[in-house]
Amino acid sequence: MQDRKPCNYGEYLKLDTLLSSQEPESLKAGKMAHDEMLFIIIHQTYELWFKQVLFELDSIREIFSETPLPTSRLQTVVSRFERINEILKVLVDQIRIIETMTPLDFMDFRDFLVPASGFQSVQFKLLEARLGLKASFRSEMERTFILSRLKPEERATVEAAEKEISLFEHVDQWLSRLPFTQSGNFDFWKDYEHAVNTMLAGDESIIQGNKTLDEGRKKMELEILGLTRKSFTSLLNPVAFAEAQAAGLIKLSQKAMQSAVFIHLFRDLPMLQLPYKILSLMTDVDETLTAWRHRHAIMAHRLIGTKIGTGGSSGHDYLKRTTERNRVFIDLFNIATFLLPKSKIPALPASILKTLDFEYDHGKT
Amino acid sequence: MQDRKPCNYGEYLKLDTLLSSQEPESLKAGKMAHDEMLFIIIHQTYELWFKQVLFELDSIREIFSETPLPTSRLQTVVSRFERINEILKVLVDQIRIIETMTPLDFMDFRDFLVPASGFQSVQFKLLEARLGLKASFRSEMERTFILSRLKPEERATVEAAEKEISLFEHVDQWLSRLPFTQSGNFDFWKDYEHAVNTMLAGDESIIQGNKTLDEGRKKMELEILGLTRKSFTSLLNPVAFAEAQAAGLIKLSQKAMQSAVFIHLFRDLPMLQLPYKILSLMTDVDETLTAWRHRHAIMAHRLIGTKIGTGGSSGHDYLKRTTERNRVFIDLFNIATFLLPKSKIPALPASILKTLDFEYDHGKT
Amino acid sequence: MQDRKPCNYGEYLKLDTLLSSQEPESLKAGKMAHDEMLFIIIHQTYELWFKQVLFELDSIREIFSETPLPTSRLQTVVSRFERINEILKVLVDQIRIIETMTPLDFMDFRDFLVPASGFQSVQFKLLEARLGLKASFRSEMERTFILSRLKPEERATVEAAEKEISLFEHVDQWLSRLPFTQSGNFDFWKDYEHAVNTMLAGDESIIQGNKTLDEGRKKMELEILGLTRKSFTSLLNPVAFAEAQAAGLIKLSQKAMQSAVFIHLFRDLPMLQLPYKILSLMTDVDETLTAWRHRHAIMAHRLIGTKIGTGGSSGHDYLKRTTERNRVFIDLFNIATFLLPKSKIPALPASILKTLDFEYDHGKT
Amino acid sequence: MQDRKPCNYGEYLKLDTLLSSQEPESLKAGKMAHDEMLFIIIHQTYELWFKQVLFELDSIREIFSETPLPTSRLQTVVSRFERINEILKVLVDQIRIIETMTPLDFMDFRDFLVPASGFQSVQFKLLEARLGLKASFRSEMERTFILSRLKPEERATVEAAEKEISLFEHVDQWLSRLPFTQSGNFDFWKDYEHAVNTMLAGDESIIQGNKTLDEGRKKMELEILGLTRKSFTSLLNPVAFAEAQAAGLIKLSQKAMQSAVFIHLFRDLPMLQLPYKILSLMTDVDETLTAWRHRHAIMAHRLIGTKIGTGGSSGHDYLKRTTERNRVFIDLFNIATFLLPKSKIPALPASILKTLDFEYDHGKT
Repeated sequence: MQDRKPCNYGEYLKLDTLLSSQEPESLKAGKMAHDEMLFIIIHQTYELWFKQVLFELDSIREIFSETPLPTSRLQTVVSRFERINEILKVLVDQIRIIETMTPLDFMDFRDFLVPASGFQSVQFKLLEARLGLKASFRSEMERTFILSRLKPEERATVEAAEKEISLFEHVDQWLSRLPFTQSGNFDFWKDYEHAVNTMLAGDESIIQGNKTLDEGRKKMELEILGLTRKSFTSLLNPVAFAEAQAAGLIKLSQKAMQSAVFIHLFRDLPMLQLPYKILSLMTDVDETLTAWRHRHAIMAHRLIGTKIGTGGSSGHDYLKRTTERNRVFIDLFNIATFLLPKSKIPALPASILKTLDFEYDHGKT
Repeated sequence: MQDRKPCNYGEYLKLDTLLSSQEPESLKAGKMAHDEMLFIIIHQTYELWFKQVLFELDSIREIFSETPLPTSRLQTVVSRFERINEILKVLVDQIRIIETMTPLDFMDFRDFLVPASGFQSVQFKLLEARLGLKASFRSEMERTFILSRLKPEERATVEAAEKEISLFEHVDQWLSRLPFTQSGNFDFWKDYEHAVNTMLAGDESIIQGNKTLDEGRKKMELEILGLTRKSFTSLLNPVAFAEAQAAGLIKLSQKAMQSAVFIHLFRDLPMLQLPYKILSLMTDVDETLTAWRHRHAIMAHRLIGTKIGTGGSSGHDYLKRTTERNRVFIDLFNIATFLLPKSKIPALPASILKTLDFEYDHGKT
Repeated sequence: MQDRKPCNYGEYLKLDTLLSSQEPESLKAGKMAHDEMLFIIIHQTYELWFKQVLFELDSIREIFSETPLPTSRLQTVVSRFERINEILKVLVDQIRIIETMTPLDFMDFRDFLVPASGFQSVQFKLLEARLGLKASFRSEMERTFILSRLKPEERATVEAAEKEISLFEHVDQWLSRLPFTQSGNFDFWKDYEHAVNTMLAGDESIIQGNKTLDEGRKKMELEILGLTRKSFTSLLNPVAFAEAQAAGLIKLSQKAMQSAVFIHLFRDLPMLQLPYKILSLMTDVDETLTAWRHRHAIMAHRLIGTKIGTGGSSGHDYLKRTTERNRVFIDLFNIATFLLPKSKIPALPASILKTLDFEYDHGKT
Repeated sequence: MQDRKPCNYGEYLKLDTLLSSQEPESLKAGKMAHDEMLFIIIHQTYELWFKQVLFELDSIREIFSETPLPTSRLQTVVSRFERINEILKVLVDQIRIIETMTPLDFMDFRDFLVPASGFQSVQFKLLEARLGLKASFRSEMERTFILSRLKPEERATVEAAEKEISLFEHVDQWLSRLPFTQSGNFDFWKDYEHAVNTMLAGDESIIQGNKTLDEGRKKMELEILGLTRKSFTSLLNPVAFAEAQAAGLIKLSQKAMQSAVFIHLFRDLPMLQLPYKILSLMTDVDETLTAWRHRHAIMAHRLIGTKIGTGGSSGHDYLKRTTERNRVFIDLFNIATFLLPKSKIPALPASILKTLDFEYDHGKT
């Protein structure tokens, strides 16, 4: 390595370029608005971080496309999701910086920026698409709204990304492939269904036998029990599942959703620890991204008020709506609905348990 | 002070009591669920912090009830709001701790806690009431839902708090008393109305004269302008304001809302700096409390899933709805709607400017 | 479960006791100092969190004392360390809350608290002892200083804790037992030593052959190379290691330190992923606890200034010194010193690789 | 504004340039090291934030150079310091992102970067110089170490910055000009000295009369009292102050240090609220920057180990030493040393009090 040109910090980071890429519009218009510098720089840091998140997401999608997927690669997936989560946390925290800008200060240069808007961030649209927020997830109106704001080549980039296999799809397929629920005569989901039915029957008989409840209350409790039963049915019964999916209540495939529940139930078994961690980290990604959207909407409200935009609604209302609607991995939050108390979880047969376990003792030499 | 009993750290903090106040129900039932300790302790820290926030809020309400209110006291209000905000930030951050508990771990003791619920936190209800979330702000259904969960004496405490003067009411009155907008012939709001009309007329003539817009687009732009005009009217015209208030779009009184706008426009004048800071900190309180409600709802979703509760809806749905609905100071987020670019803000007469300013030079001795 | 007494939120959390455990000394003395409430409550939350950290640490120590230690238990260790880290982060963040108290406000009640001091926190001493900061780690002076401040029974509690097997000792033993480095003719540490020697010989010949270096510079580079060689020797040679240990440069045993290096080099192998994660989380614990000590020292400086204490030095100076000195797991920060570039890491024989790996394919049924 | 070219988000932020400014050296060398992208991007975000902090610092220095300095400008200083503090907090938090890179991953590209180093960040050196860390504050060795790493033109830039009036100097001058401590016969510092002497004499007689103290303990208590007395003398006596300054114990001028103490004692008076806030925010800047240095040193230790650098010491040791040594505003942390309990603070005469106060009632029109 001795014949390499010595590396220089400033050149390596391209600081000449980077630090001369701030050109306030207010300055061009004749009077620098002090706070425009912050506005530019914070957006630039957001875009740099978006690039990094995309870079990590792409590498994760690549790993998920390997067949077979070696166990050792799952650890890499875990590390990269952990990194994405740390970045997302900083993106949320950074909102406190932009909030040191007041509405009146923003007015000093806001008009110069028309019609530029964060909705034009191609990288953020790519990020959403690569996570899984594809055309089919968005309402037609929202999609038109977004795409109409992009340049033709940007639009093409986003539309191309929507056609690639998203993280959501990779994970759905990976989960669908998970073995371990059947072996010989053993069918985990039959045993699970049985356990659920026993549990619910027990609950029902408790309600029926409870003399302290009046008739109205008893009726209500039984109705709630009925809803709970329906909810379990939607996981187990293919027709009910398809209905829930058609109604937009669930996005994952039935097999994938069942695997996710299975992994949660047996997460302590060595072979399921990494899959569990991955699901857990994707839940974190969804959660922190949602927190970011929410804080962002509130910040925009504070900074701009309820000024009506071209779409006939105010920007922060739009942002607030996407907070909940654009959650790609919301199914993972519903897993808790399908868990059973540890004492009621059906036992796995020894053959499967052995497959799922490994011991350090084996390693003794 | 030499004859005082020496103070001891553990006795001072009542650690014997404090550290023996954790009695897991699972332990009583025969098998300690490891994570129940965390569940108890995190809720206890939340309650300790609620006590501190209430303590600060009460002292702020007391200051606001002083007549006349000395300027030097406003600095104390600022400090205490800053403290409340730092506490609220930690309350949000703490959610990451509870999220180290998984749904399956929670199941190990969840049933022992029925029907206890965070909805039974009297201090949190007091906090909401003292901020200003009184009976009239809540829907009847929500209020019934909450109060029915409390013991009679707790219910009485909350209802009594709802009758006290809340922070919201104190601030409304304080803002309503703000002078400075009239002096001799000068009437700030007449000048402001004139400035608004001139600005909007200019915008209208630009739209009308813009030959690049087709008729459909022009019509839309003019409709948006109409909405903007209507929005300014709602601030200035008492009848329009009363309508907006009746429709639930605004909670502050007209005079108070106008003062809040005035303070934002002239926040650099020395006499308005503390009032501006106070409004800004109350906006922060609303924002961080809203972030807490939102994160709390998502965390509950993750931990419990969509299990239907007694009210016929899942707990996290309920929590998500209150995120937006229970915001006491949301009017402060709308102030930005009514600001004007600095160049268009009507000038204050010298007599008022002099009153609002002070100089260190006066202090030279 | 139907015959249980219904659980009530306030009773469950013992809120009556908890929320009446704040008795400001200034109030007893006749004039409540407003900020004393914060001072009490923040210390109480710290003590509650210390209790939780101790609870988790004890459970981790218990797991480490199981023989043999099942792999599935390591995941539990990971989860609990993750929880401890989230708690420690909040302990750092909470410092911002206490900093809303100014030195002058603290003076309003500071004298009432004499001679109470955070040094009297028994739980914090227990926490240090259970982590591994035992008598032998502390200077005699520091230990006397601390113990002299405790009541006899508190002192006994701390001294008893110092005699138990600490986390540090458990981890040292667990690491020392790690197999995998020898098999038949294979001895990893021989191969490693060979790789190191080859690498350093290469570096030396580059320096010797580099004509752009003058003699002085060449001499310096060779001296640095000598120090690097010495550093590797201290890991590999028992005598050199014992010297480093005697000089206080390292706390772990040689076998444990070597295992830690081995785990870092092969952390991607499935069987080493959990051990790697555990080491990494313990490094985080040390790092966040150190950050807490440092921020705490600076906060104390700001709040109290350089007032000389009974020990003849100011409190914040003492705190700053312990920041670095009381780090239990600092050896883990030195692991990087002993890593080799991936291309130079000696290969493991197939027999060991097979032991360290497992594949999901095996799981196919 | 209708004839402006419409602003486009991507062009405004120069995203084409920004997002193509990452050129990993490992990629050029033939094999992309995955984590080098993160390494580049996080450093780029740091540099962008340094630019923003410098921009704010320069505007603050400009305001401080105005004569006379209008009170209304102090509010702007406050806002900008608040912004700097929010940025610094994010700089600390970002360290968690870089820590997702492990030592072994860093080794994949570390050698390509030689001899580049964060020590070559010109902006960071400028930031230190503009705060006040000038040539005279640094040890000669440290300065040589730093400057020798820069290119000639970079070196010139840093040396030029060291010659400009730093924030420290501006603040020292501004504090030195503060009036209010003398008026007619009144001399605040005489009264303060008297109050101190009375207080210390009281303490001495308490110690002397305390029969529970043995002779050794009594002697020690009196020695501590002597040190406290000496500490007050160093503030009040010009000769003692000059000695403390020569010994490097204090950096501010005597008049400035006294003003800082005065502001803390009377911070509730309206005219002193902004000065107090400014001092408090500068203390925060010092504290958060110190926390950043400390966390940075520990992170470097973890990532690189104790590899010896060209200077004959390891990088993290160097960083740890600068953590404490390079604190520009450490004097502000010592203010607490000189505060008196509120009951013992000398009263200000009515004439000065009137000057320092203002009331909203005056503002009634």
